[in-house]
Amino acid sequence: MDAAEFRRCGKEMVDYVADYLENIEKRQVYPDVEPGYLRSLIPEEAPEEAESYEDVVKDIERVIMPGVTHWHSPYFYAYFPTANSFPAMLADMLCGAIGCIGFSWGTASEATLIALLAARSKVVKLIQADHPDRSETDIISKLVAYSSDQAHSSVERAGLIGGVRMKKIPTDKKFSVRGDALKKVIEMDKAAGLIPFFFCATLGTTPSCAFDCITELGPICNAEKIWMHIDAAYAGSAFICPEFRPLLNGIEFADSFNFNPHKWLLVNFDCSAMCSYVISHLISLQHWQIPLGRRFRALKMWFVFRMYGLKGLQAYIRKHVGLAKEFESLVRADQRFEISADVVMGLICFRLKGSNELNETLLKRINSARKIHLVPCQLAGKFVLRFAVCARTTESRHVQEAWCHISHLASELLQELPH
Amino acid sequence: MDAAEFRRCGKEMVDYVADYLENIEKRQVYPDVEPGYLRSLIPEEAPEEAESYEDVVKDIERVIMPGVTHWHSPYFYAYFPTANSFPAMLADMLCGAIGCIGFSWGTASEATLIALLAARSKVVKLIQADHPDRSETDIISKLVAYSSDQAHSSVERAGLIGGVRMKKIPTDKKFSVRGDALKKVIEMDKAAGLIPFFFCATLGTTPSCAFDCITELGPICNAEKIWMHIDAAYAGSAFICPEFRPLLNGIEFADSFNFNPHKWLLVNFDCSAMCSYVISHLISLQHWQIPLGRRFRALKMWFVFRMYGLKGLQAYIRKHVGLAKEFESLVRADQRFEISADVVMGLICFRLKGSNELNETLLKRINSARKIHLVPCQLAGKFVLRFAVCARTTESRHVQEAWCHISHLASELLQELPH
Repeated sequence: MDAAEFRRCGKEMVDYVADYLENIEKRQVYPDVEPGYLRSLIPEEAPEEAESYEDVVKDIERVIMPGVTHWHSPYFYAYFPTANSFPAMLADMLCGAIGCIGFSWGTASEATLIALLAARSKVVKLIQADHPDRSETDIISKLVAYSSDQAHSSVERAGLIGGVRMKKIPTDKKFSVRGDALKKVIEMDKAAGLIPFFFCATLGTTPSCAFDCITELGPICNAEKIWMHIDAAYAGSAFICPEFRPLLNGIEFADSFNFNPHKWLLVNFDCSAMCSYVISHLISLQHWQIPLGRRFRALKMWFVFRMYGLKGLQAYIRKHVGLAKEFESLVRADQRFEISADVVMGLICFRLKGSNELNETLLKRINSARKIHLVPCQLAGKFVLRFAVCARTTESRHVQEAWCHISHLASELLQELPH
Repeated sequence: MDAAEFRRCGKEMVDYVADYLENIEKRQVYPDVEPGYLRSLIPEEAPEEAESYEDVVKDIERVIMPGVTHWHSPYFYAYFPTANSFPAMLADMLCGAIGCIGFSWGTASEATLIALLAARSKVVKLIQADHPDRSETDIISKLVAYSSDQAHSSVERAGLIGGVRMKKIPTDKKFSVRGDALKKVIEMDKAAGLIPFFFCATLGTTPSCAFDCITELGPICNAEKIWMHIDAAYAGSAFICPEFRPLLNGIEFADSFNFNPHKWLLVNFDCSAMCSYVISHLISLQHWQIPLGRRFRALKMWFVFRMYGLKGLQAYIRKHVGLAKEFESLVRADQRFEISADVVMGLICFRLKGSNELNETLLKRINSARKIHLVPCQLAGKFVLRFAVCARTTESRHVQEAWCHISHLASELLQELPH
């Protein structure tokens, strides 16, 4: 394929992509296939001779699409959003052509690990300054890191990889870590000869979008020389709107902060931003970063920031929050259901009043119907349905339709129960 | 920007990308700017109001391009190749639109870390099976991992992150680790009470593309229950050509293997493939992987494998190796120069016969002239120039031209010296 052919095929691909995204809601959001379906559709080995672009393109619908979960469908309400926007796609085309090595972005999981490793290295150096005879491995074996019991699994994994103890701090009724709870554990651990060194606070937890109380936690961490890292993977994007800034109060106590523009800021996956508040931290963060090379991801942010403008991005966040409020009202108006956690951003946690089993059955029926896609969570022992406003193309009518569908399936389910 | 506007702008971008790549050799390969040049060219903050695509596009040449090192220029001979091909770019466009979560690929640095962590976990479990009272942190503090003294810095970093001792095994005259050298260190370490558990062999080292002798090393690792990971980041792509397969002899002893299609197999960055030979390893590898989400990178490989075909990919590898041989002959024909390591694939290590200082000056002049771009390495205490055939667009005339240029600068330099 030469440049002339790329001009022709590239323009066809632009049309394919535009068609795909314009008509995405006509596709079934969740695939019917089983893992391994691909094996019978493709040859065992790569072809000897080159095939044409047309050969490959006709297989996209035959081979690839049947296995795709359409994350950008307005019927996708699972996990958290994964961004998708036209400006980011244009930037990615340019990024692929330049193909040079860009700046230092990774995923949020990486950011947590990097912060933990930098904190580990810092505390080892601090202790060795006073006790030059203590070995690094000895110090590491006494370290303890903390996070919320609602924190993402990647936080626990960062502890595993770093070879340090990791403890979960119990949360309050709103699923937030409070100062007292952290203080209690720190004191117990210090009394047992352990060295607390790292706390990963979450702003916008994965299960319920809860916010740890960093105004209480920050001063404790600072006083105890504990590195406070803030994981705002999802909610961080919303802080471009002034009305959400109060949730950032206490940020001045943090040592490092991470959020994912690829979640909720229209910058296509993957793009995660990390910053640190002390120059020497920045240096150690770079040192601990895992991949050596990186795509030029800043290009996507630049296109998106400029072509949406701050106002456009704020409008986008607010639209999603508005749709979430709309869905919340629908749930609240239905006496059979309850809301399981405060709705602050684009996530609604809800359930039928009744047993976990009942709610598990409801979710199973929702997902088997393939019209919309949701995932559950556990909150205080209860099985809860998560409705996350995800797609750029989600409008009020989709949310209304999704609710009608859920409500209808709930009615069917409740009618089957013995009275 | 709606779909209709994306159709228009996307097609413009396809033309921009084709123009860029068709005319890349007219651009200066290495930028003149200083770090920070960007700051005065862009506003302090993101714009309030959305800007048009045209506003952004006109800034590509004004703002972005002056800072770009053109990795795909036929005058780029630094590091190792970073792949760039039209089929991969088409696949990336589709990948961005689908924006779903794909398979398990990372960078080679990540692969080494993952293998080391999996090996660490395996050895801890094995030892605890016999000695249930030994703590994990105690075992880890006795572990020792090995690599060649020519191994990539990411291997040493994997050891640092994993919190284990890492030792470099001295290489022979051809910069390969041999069985005897490894055996000697293992025996010393075992006598000192340490537990050898991991060896990272390199096939195609970064400084000189040397190959560790895995037919000797493999049986030693297997007998000592040491996990042998093979880092073939660059050279791995060449194994699609049967004539390079003998370099893989001994692979049957390996526990895990990694190579980067994004280096030399025409699959745009980033795409790194890792495999393990034991199912239980595969499971632990997935467990230790750092990022939770991933782009659908397999799509790029699929486009590239089909649209080049095995023959096309082999022809590409062989063309680069041929160009390297051509450059090697040019160097060998010039009595002022010497070849510093066997030329096996697309990399030539060479230098002026004379002091390190002389060669440092030569490299400085080559890179300041901005016509071509090279990076150096150290081999056995000598300062050596690395000429890596990198770009897809490199032809014989570029290599000849590069040699003329180097030879001319060398003549100038040598004439300045007192006789």
